[in-house]
Amino acid sequence: MKAVRLHEYHQMPVVEEVPEPTVQGPLDVMVRIGGAGVCRTDLHIVEGQWAEAMDPTLPYTIGHENAGWVHEVGSGVTTVQPGDTVILHPSPTCGLCHACRAGQDMHCVNSSFPGLERDGGMAEYLLTKERACVKLDPQTRPEDVAALADAGITAYHAVRKAIPLLYPGTTCVVIGAGGLGHIGIQCLAALTATRIVVVDRNADALALAKELGAHAGVLADGGQVEAVKDLTSGRGAEVVLDFVAEQGAEQDGFAMTARAGSYYVIGYGGTVQIPTLDIISTERNLIGNIVGTYNDLAELMVLAQAGRVTLHTRTYPLDAAVDALKDLDAGRVRGRAILVP
Amino acid sequence: MKAVRLHEYHQMPVVEEVPEPTVQGPLDVMVRIGGAGVCRTDLHIVEGQWAEAMDPTLPYTIGHENAGWVHEVGSGVTTVQPGDTVILHPSPTCGLCHACRAGQDMHCVNSSFPGLERDGGMAEYLLTKERACVKLDPQTRPEDVAALADAGITAYHAVRKAIPLLYPGTTCVVIGAGGLGHIGIQCLAALTATRIVVVDRNADALALAKELGAHAGVLADGGQVEAVKDLTSGRGAEVVLDFVAEQGAEQDGFAMTARAGSYYVIGYGGTVQIPTLDIISTERNLIGNIVGTYNDLAELMVLAQAGRVTLHTRTYPLDAAVDALKDLDAGRVRGRAILVP
Amino acid sequence: MKAVRLHEYHQMPVVEEVPEPTVQGPLDVMVRIGGAGVCRTDLHIVEGQWAEAMDPTLPYTIGHENAGWVHEVGSGVTTVQPGDTVILHPSPTCGLCHACRAGQDMHCVNSSFPGLERDGGMAEYLLTKERACVKLDPQTRPEDVAALADAGITAYHAVRKAIPLLYPGTTCVVIGAGGLGHIGIQCLAALTATRIVVVDRNADALALAKELGAHAGVLADGGQVEAVKDLTSGRGAEVVLDFVAEQGAEQDGFAMTARAGSYYVIGYGGTVQIPTLDIISTERNLIGNIVGTYNDLAELMVLAQAGRVTLHTRTYPLDAAVDALKDLDAGRVRGRAILVP
Amino acid sequence: MKAVRLHEYHQMPVVEEVPEPTVQGPLDVMVRIGGAGVCRTDLHIVEGQWAEAMDPTLPYTIGHENAGWVHEVGSGVTTVQPGDTVILHPSPTCGLCHACRAGQDMHCVNSSFPGLERDGGMAEYLLTKERACVKLDPQTRPEDVAALADAGITAYHAVRKAIPLLYPGTTCVVIGAGGLGHIGIQCLAALTATRIVVVDRNADALALAKELGAHAGVLADGGQVEAVKDLTSGRGAEVVLDFVAEQGAEQDGFAMTARAGSYYVIGYGGTVQIPTLDIISTERNLIGNIVGTYNDLAELMVLAQAGRVTLHTRTYPLDAAVDALKDLDAGRVRGRAILVP
Repeated sequence: MKAVRLHEYHQMPVVEEVPEPTVQGPLDVMVRIGGAGVCRTDLHIVEGQWAEAMDPTLPYTIGHENAGWVHEVGSGVTTVQPGDTVILHPSPTCGLCHACRAGQDMHCVNSSFPGLERDGGMAEYLLTKERACVKLDPQTRPEDVAALADAGITAYHAVRKAIPLLYPGTTCVVIGAGGLGHIGIQCLAALTATRIVVVDRNADALALAKELGAHAGVLADGGQVEAVKDLTSGRGAEVVLDFVAEQGAEQDGFAMTARAGSYYVIGYGGTVQIPTLDIISTERNLIGNIVGTYNDLAELMVLAQAGRVTLHTRTYPLDAAVDALKDLDAGRVRGRAILVP
Repeated sequence: MKAVRLHEYHQMPVVEEVPEPTVQGPLDVMVRIGGAGVCRTDLHIVEGQWAEAMDPTLPYTIGHENAGWVHEVGSGVTTVQPGDTVILHPSPTCGLCHACRAGQDMHCVNSSFPGLERDGGMAEYLLTKERACVKLDPQTRPEDVAALADAGITAYHAVRKAIPLLYPGTTCVVIGAGGLGHIGIQCLAALTATRIVVVDRNADALALAKELGAHAGVLADGGQVEAVKDLTSGRGAEVVLDFVAEQGAEQDGFAMTARAGSYYVIGYGGTVQIPTLDIISTERNLIGNIVGTYNDLAELMVLAQAGRVTLHTRTYPLDAAVDALKDLDAGRVRGRAILVP
Repeated sequence: MKAVRLHEYHQMPVVEEVPEPTVQGPLDVMVRIGGAGVCRTDLHIVEGQWAEAMDPTLPYTIGHENAGWVHEVGSGVTTVQPGDTVILHPSPTCGLCHACRAGQDMHCVNSSFPGLERDGGMAEYLLTKERACVKLDPQTRPEDVAALADAGITAYHAVRKAIPLLYPGTTCVVIGAGGLGHIGIQCLAALTATRIVVVDRNADALALAKELGAHAGVLADGGQVEAVKDLTSGRGAEVVLDFVAEQGAEQDGFAMTARAGSYYVIGYGGTVQIPTLDIISTERNLIGNIVGTYNDLAELMVLAQAGRVTLHTRTYPLDAAVDALKDLDAGRVRGRAILVP
Repeated sequence: MKAVRLHEYHQMPVVEEVPEPTVQGPLDVMVRIGGAGVCRTDLHIVEGQWAEAMDPTLPYTIGHENAGWVHEVGSGVTTVQPGDTVILHPSPTCGLCHACRAGQDMHCVNSSFPGLERDGGMAEYLLTKERACVKLDPQTRPEDVAALADAGITAYHAVRKAIPLLYPGTTCVVIGAGGLGHIGIQCLAALTATRIVVVDRNADALALAKELGAHAGVLADGGQVEAVKDLTSGRGAEVVLDFVAEQGAEQDGFAMTARAGSYYVIGYGGTVQIPTLDIISTERNLIGNIVGTYNDLAELMVLAQAGRVTLHTRTYPLDAAVDALKDLDAGRVRGRAILVP
């Protein structure tokens, strides 16, 4: 089958032929990919940012945002069968450790992360496990929803954690209205009555944000911290969701956060640098955010199937994976790029 | 009356005569001080660390950790009367703003902070408001409890916030077993069944920590991060309470925190510097902590009066305020120094 | 001034002349009433249901749902002044007790309840306290919002408590789409993405409910429990908000609640009768609900001023108070009846 | 093998020979029983109280509180192996449904309940699944801990849910200091600093309760509601944990609950009968409680292995199962009766 393989860090991956994976364990599930999202993390992988944390053996297939159809199942699988349309939680988890049992399966101590640690979904087939499969309405087109599997679940997870802080009268700043951010805005609008203020460098992204439910847009032209303060009587926002967290956004984000507020780090690449006096004198929090739980993904699919969250996507054939990565890097993708094998 | 007054930053305060304060508003309460705690924050005030955030007019009286007896009350005061023994919440609050009404009075938008912003309690009398007074058993000696008014409430507040994370089987690291830390350890032992691991540079402080309920002590001799990892099968602690947060502790603290765990910043003086990738890939949080609520102080007094939290203090006459500050600075105080007018 | 006074239980109140109240304490606020809502509780008061719990001295003025303009203030009042448009939290609270400080001011141990315990707002003027006043946009017409002061705050309070249970994919049943229920439905739609199923005896009320955001309506014609089960694959609803809780609704409500779900009792008049085996074998909860907090009311006003919650009201002159009560009793009021002095 | 089998409701079970169970599915685990607790629920089963809810095919083996050694495992089992000492969560769950993934595995929609729905553990061997096995220190004697598998986990689960309500200064009433209650008291003492007041009909049970950490005991001689009110300045207790919930305790329990408090129903057999006016006017809750989660059991084992929770047990040989049931019924068991095959 065809797969998008990374051979060396700092070099673009290559589309090439590899053997199909095969079902081995009783809980294995092999999925025919219908859509594989292209994520900023894929660029970061190429840049080697994840090399230390994940340490995959090169070459390997990237792609951690996948949907498709069940192709074959192991002997112990009971909840999906060949032909089922599925979206895949990015991380097949064990179901037995404390985290899995505590509703925090993304912290499973026995999981692996296809596309980061081992072969992922930018390919014709992907090997995963039963616990990762969310069954969908058979008429769903995988390419239409694939971006929810990682961009979506991550944005949803952060928003869901913030709900208790976002009662009426509060302000939530969203930094970055791209792949994740444009989903986050819709989740905020569906799940809270907070005022949504979006900060982005790109005026088009701000325009899209307003269509999706943002109440105000701030162009990140240098005056963004001041602009958010102005919009909040000088206080800052109770919650800041930072989908960028690099190139200065990570300092802006904390600076825009109100006393007793929380700054959610979702993007990455930068380094926060904050005097502990500033943290304690205002009792502000920095909240880490990773991909969400299986249940987060299932809940997000409910929103999606009710039309409360819609994706802005652009599809590319699998062969054009490198074009998609380059378009993303150059800021030429509004919403999310999706590879269709 | 005598008062400990700061005339210039970077110079020790002076004990001198000033006029007594007078009750003016209907909710004012004038308190005769029985004990005024000496806090590392007082040193930081002298160093000018709070100059920008609080901006007091010099000279002024420091001292933000106070207990004593009600001396005079305004016409609208209904819950305390002259002669009552009281411990004082550090910040007289309005009771009318959103924060006060939401159980977050330390974020009151109309409060002031005696000893930081205006005249504090290292004096014979202090002017505060009814909302700051916690009435005590008349037999309580103010000098025995004063340290709970700031060191105590701050430690208690952080511990109380962390309770939901500290179920049996978890580990909580306490960095710094000094004025705040030795109270935090006792609060942890009273309110949770977590394993308490204390990290301190001083072997005596570790010995005291164990008497107060710590299960293990780690000498901060350079290998403290590794030692905590070893004690937790390599994972780190679910919660780290950092009562130091300067001189490198602020980097250690985050490094000791387990995946999905929370690092509570309580001390201050240093600067955290963390790649956003490290925050998101492990979903760790940095939690800001300031002084607690009035209810926190009232709850802590319940623990204290039941003997669940006891203070290690050393008293000094008010005239010896500078000696007390110097002893604290030189690390010669185990527990807390208390001025007695 | 004119006031609606109850002279004897089981007899309709009388509109008569009484002296105006006067400002006495430093925190008193006298309000000129612009709108006073008529509530099912007023009928229950007349029936004597509250006689034991509240024990007012007859005759007294009823009316616990009020908005108007500040007329006069006590010497210590700082946050409102004569002329301000205000909606009134039903219960002036002390701000000093544990409940007030914990963000639960409706459990204030020093409050009284105008209209239940002492003279209320079906009159030209009402005496309350500063802590009860929520300042509004000066252009707001009190008669348009008065119903939010009790019906609104109570519905909002229950919905807000239920938010964590109402993630996407859940079902929330609302029993009773009348004065409180029609606000509850809008709050649910604004604050959650749950599926809203409304149960009512009246087909018109169901039609209105759908306009306000309900996803399904069930006519309470005897088969309502079965109908809810059918809509939820036999499981029942994760949350049931019962705005009726009498005449059998209180048994239906629990029966409609799913395993591990919560039945919120908001209306009253009936008696729940449930085997403890049914409570424990399914781990279902019965949640009591009273009027909300001051902050609840402030938040609800944000929703109202953003047009997310609109009231269906019918105004009556103060002199027609008895007509309004009779119309309510006979089920002739859609939404809420409002007296305008 | 020998097993304790129920042949008919309202007749005592019989100890008789039955075939050993066999491992069939890949995740099956067969356990050699080392200790099987005897629970009031076993009496209720004999009385037919669970017939409708669980509907087992008679005859079947009772016993839902089990510990022992792994004897044989299915092909897909990875976390336990023959010889391991284990305590068993009462309900083998699927790990795939929403509840299992949300940290609420006791609400698994695909689980069964050995000892209630199908063959249980009052036998030489029990068939369960990998997800139910909590691995213990190999030196633990199953008979010493078996009672934690159901009595313990249920008491722990209720206490853990109540922790946020039990801050210092509150009172928690425990009704019934028997099999569950005596564990609940120890969990309260380990996990909170609340004042523990125990209500029981038996003076010996009260004496034991005080040794285990209760601060006060109230003899249930008719004046128990009044006595609790007296101990709480007339307010009642913030939390009441009712381990009886029959024979009038279920009315007492709610009556002892303070305004804004919560009454936890844990025992069963009676019927609560409460006017909805009483529920809403004081905003009290009735909280259902069933057996806890797997993680609850694992956490409880941490407390047990640290000596924070100790069991008062009396062992009987498996052949004497009927004697044990009769002793329990007659109130002759302090703590818990354990069958040892």
